[in-house]
Parts: sequence; C-alpha cells; structure tokens
Amino acid sequence: MSDNLFNNNPVCSFFNIRFPIIQAGMVWVSGWKLCSAVSRAGGLGLLGSGSMKPDLLREHIIKTRTALGDEFPFGVNLTLMRKDVSDLVNVCLEEKVKIFFNSAGNPALWTEKLKSAGAIAVHVVPNAKLARKAAERGVDAVICEGVEAGGHNGVDEIPTFTLVPQVRDAVKIPVIAAGGIADGRGMAAAFALGADGVQIGTRFAATIESSASDRYKQAVVDAGESDTVLALRNIGLTRMIKTPFALQCVDYEKRGVSADETRALLGEKRERKGIFEGLWGEGQLEAGVSAGLIREVLPAAVVVENLIREYTETVQRLGGASRA
Amino acid sequence: MSDNLFNNNPVCSFFNIRFPIIQAGMVWVSGWKLCSAVSRAGGLGLLGSGSMKPDLLREHIIKTRTALGDEFPFGVNLTLMRKDVSDLVNVCLEEKVKIFFNSAGNPALWTEKLKSAGAIAVHVVPNAKLARKAAERGVDAVICEGVEAGGHNGVDEIPTFTLVPQVRDAVKIPVIAAGGIADGRGMAAAFALGADGVQIGTRFAATIESSASDRYKQAVVDAGESDTVLALRNIGLTRMIKTPFALQCVDYEKRGVSADETRALLGEKRERKGIFEGLWGEGQLEAGVSAGLIREVLPAAVVVENLIREYTETVQRLGGASRA
Repeated sequence: MSDNLFNNNPVCSFFNIRFPIIQAGMVWVSGWKLCSAVSRAGGLGLLGSGSMKPDLLREHIIKTRTALGDEFPFGVNLTLMRKDVSDLVNVCLEEKVKIFFNSAGNPALWTEKLKSAGAIAVHVVPNAKLARKAAERGVDAVICEGVEAGGHNGVDEIPTFTLVPQVRDAVKIPVIAAGGIADGRGMAAAFALGADGVQIGTRFAATIESSASDRYKQAVVDAGESDTVLALRNIGLTRMIKTPFALQCVDYEKRGVSADETRALLGEKRERKGIFEGLWGEGQLEAGVSAGLIREVLPAAVVVENLIREYTETVQRLGGASRA
Repeated sequence: MSDNLFNNNPVCSFFNIRFPIIQAGMVWVSGWKLCSAVSRAGGLGLLGSGSMKPDLLREHIIKTRTALGDEFPFGVNLTLMRKDVSDLVNVCLEEKVKIFFNSAGNPALWTEKLKSAGAIAVHVVPNAKLARKAAERGVDAVICEGVEAGGHNGVDEIPTFTLVPQVRDAVKIPVIAAGGIADGRGMAAAFALGADGVQIGTRFAATIESSASDRYKQAVVDAGESDTVLALRNIGLTRMIKTPFALQCVDYEKRGVSADETRALLGEKRERKGIFEGLWGEGQLEAGVSAGLIREVLPAAVVVENLIREYTETVQRLGGASRA
C-alpha cells in the first residue's frame, strides 16, 4: 500500500481517512455492514438513508458506530427531496453523525444547519453550474456524478470524462468524481481529470457486505459493457441493468408515451423489488455502466485493496507512458 | 516537451510520430491544411475523406504531401459504408497513402487489401466486442470511440470512461482512445484507463487550420458543458451542438416519430450547412461534449503543444496525488 501517494490529499485530510475512496450511499445496498467494512478498510463508508425510515436509519447509525468504534469515521447520504428529510436529519444530529453527503435537492436548504451542528456537508452535483452554486452555499466539497452512474442521474447527461475537469475549473473546494469508476485505472483517470477523490457505487454494491440480494449482485457480475441503459427520461432519468422491465421502459420512450403513462408503468417499489428482492423480471436493478468491468463479488476490503494497488500501478505506468 | 514520456509508446513507434496524438479525420474540417499542421507539430494528421469526392481527396493527398515532404507521416480516414469507397481506396493506393483509419463498416472488407499494399489499417470501434472482431480480422490498431464524441456514434452509447479499459482488456494490439478528450488532463486520463494514444476531434475542429466555417468554430468555443446533444437515434445516433435544428430532432424523438419522418426532417447536406457553411438555424453542427472545455480557436500546433504540456504536468501531479 502506498499511503504516501495520498499524503497531501485534501479528501483524506478532510475526512481523516487513509484512502480518498468514498463508498456511495445506495438504496437497498448501503447498510451498516457495507459502510463499516469500507471505513475499516481505509475508505469512507456511507449509509444510504434513501431506503430507510428514520428509526431504521438510527439503528444502522448505532450499529455502524458499534462496529467502528471511535477510530474510523463514516457518513450518511441524504436525499434532500424526501418529504421526511427533517426527521432523518434530526436522527442524524441526535446520533452525532458528523459527515453528510446530500443529493437531489437544493444545497441552500440544509447546509447551514448541518454545518452549525459541527458536521461536514458534501453535495452531489451533475454539472459545473450547480457545483459553483453549491460552493457559494458553503458546502465543504462536491461530488460530481457523471451519467455513467447507476440509479438517478442529472438531466444534462454529462459524462464523467468531461464533467470532472469542468467542475475542477469551476470551484476551489475538493472535488470527488463519481460515475464509471470500478477499478484503480478509473480512479487514476478521475485524478488525472482533476478529482481529489472518488465515490464508487456499483463496485461496492457487488460485495459480500452489500445488502443487495445475491441475484442483484450476480446480475452486476454478469453484465457486459452495454448491459445498462438510461431509462425513465420523462419522469426522472435512471440508469439500470437491461432487465425485461428496463426494456419495457425503453420501448415506452421510443413510442413517445406521456409522463403519466411512464409513472403508471413504474408503479411502486421497483427499486426494492430489483435490488433487495432480486426480482429479475419486474424489478429495477439500478447499476452503473461500470458493471461491465465487475467480474466477481468480493469482500469490500478487497475492493479497496485492489483499487489502491491498481491505482499505484497505473500512476507508475504513466510515469513511463509505456504499457504495463 | 517531454519526449522521453513516450519513448516506449507503441502508437509513436507504429506511425513514426513524436507524440501519440491523432487528429480525427472529420467531414468538412480535416483537409490538407489541418492534417499537415498536426503532422508537422508531431502528431498524426488525418484527411477526412467523408466529405470529399475521389478527385478532391487526391488533390488533398497531393497538397498534404507537398506540405509535409517525406519527413512527416499522415493518414486518411475512410467511411467504409460509402458507396464509392473502392474509388477512394484506389485513389489512396495510387497516391501511396500508407496509413488508413477506417470507420463505419466491417473490418473484414478492406483490411487485407490495404495491408497487402503495405499500409497500416486502423479500425474505429464503439465497443470491446467489435474491437475483438477487428483484431481477429488483422487490423493493426483500434480506436475506441466513446459516446462523448461528436458526429456519428455507436448504438450502445458506451462512454469513454468505461469503454477504454474494457477494450484494453479485450485486445493485445494498440488501443487509441477517442471521445471527450480536449486537453492534457483528458489525454492522461485516457492513458490511465489503458490507452496507448488518443484521437482528438472537436479540439482540432476549432483551430485556425480547420476547414470549418468561423461560425462553426465560434459555436464550439461558445458551447458550455451541456450544449451538445445526442440526436437522430432512430436513423443513426449523432452528437451535435444544440442548435434550433438539433432541438427539433430532440423534439421529434420525444414524440416517438418514425424513422421515415426523421429522415424527412434531416433532408440533405445538413453537415455541410452546419460545419462548412456555418448556418446556425438549419445546419447540423457536429461536435463532441468536450466542446465545453474549448475556450478559444488556436493554431493546431499550439493545441498539440498544450496537450503535451498539460499531459506532462498531470502525470507529474499524479506522482504526488496532490493538486497542482
């Protein structure tokens, strides 16, 4: 392990972690087991509150802290558009959560409250324009998420490759890249483009400690380079594995159906059915395009270890610009 | 300039060039002026035959060779699906062209003929599956082009970030990355992902030597991070700047119109009108999403110089993983 590579890394010093690797707070995936495994391995684990009611979130916070002790930090991902977001925030502050990763909402709404409670507030953005806005609102860092990412996506469909340098040029606060990163080559590429750290979703969703169903994890492993698709454009762009349900969404889009018809097709609990229950036919199996790079289910600590080894090899290879 | 960075680079030794930078052979953009300027600056210039009749291509080959002498190599981009492709090939072989970059067609059709004439044949692919097939057919190298690229795109819509490592893992021949690369950070990222070289389009389209109209070049400079769009999905996916025509295409797609209706909308000579004549309202201004990173029209040699300087800075920065 080459800790010295990250000696001056602002993400590492900010969160007091060994490696600038954030595990995304994914619905039905990121519970206390995954979160604590990643934090213990030297990254930053996040609880995904998107699929939790306030009481369940409290339970996961307590279990994570019990697993980690005081030595390792962790954070919570909040979906700011949720109706009960203030209940979730209150649970977090009561349980003394110190790191928040906030998505799908206005950074003006919660940043001040979280920061005045002594917490770090990071905001997820899909473009440089919102990165600048989030920085002006006082967030401590931004995650810029490219259209490669699994699950919900920004309407602009900007890919990681051009998003990261434009966000880097737009703000002075730390920039964390997300979308498409599943190995150490991708991590090094994100750093080359200007990122200070990476947030990784799908690779961690296919780990032993992930709460997702075995069927979902196998679907990620089986997915090839073109087996995810962007769907549900007229009600909320979402990247998912090409299941029968996903193909039905694509067909709806091709026929130009209305948002109401798409909503009727979506129905309820598709994410739960797909990710947590592993129902291939009717579920929504959210995953990033990086699924094509994922070939086995691994323990989360091995994922972190591989990322750092490959990152180090890549940086050394670039020094000579010859192929490894 | 850090030539030593590319001492063992297979793309440099293959084409006998100083820097592993290929200038894309773009319609209405890549004539003898641009091609010879890039080759003279140490990259590899390509003539874009896609907008040329055989006689015009011959004229550009002769002018390029006159401008370059024997010292600097250059190549020709062929669109294999064109009806008169055999006429174009004959012109090239008569004029002793030694480097071919072929796109939009089956590598089985021309590779053997070109190679038996002593030429190098490179094939453009949109996914790892076709990269493997092209390698089996004997092509000398592949260009893998992500959905970030301007103009015509593969149906899978795979972004550069996940495309490059999967193509790298699929073939042993040199891999050239394309799509989204406009500066040295992007070039370093492509190398981190596993590329041996880069092909760059839009950045070179907005140079002094580009044959595109001044209006087109200014549109590239003016474009922000989300000012290109993928359109014409049902007749041939194409990335272009969001002009009134492009937005009309998007509207057609949203309404689920037929391929015939889309073809009727497209009509004829949209690329010529957009790129060469600079007609903002009715033209098709093809450009990559990297247009957001391009802030001024520059001489081609300065583009090459900037790429190498930024690449070198990026590789040095990664060695310490601290921000520049």
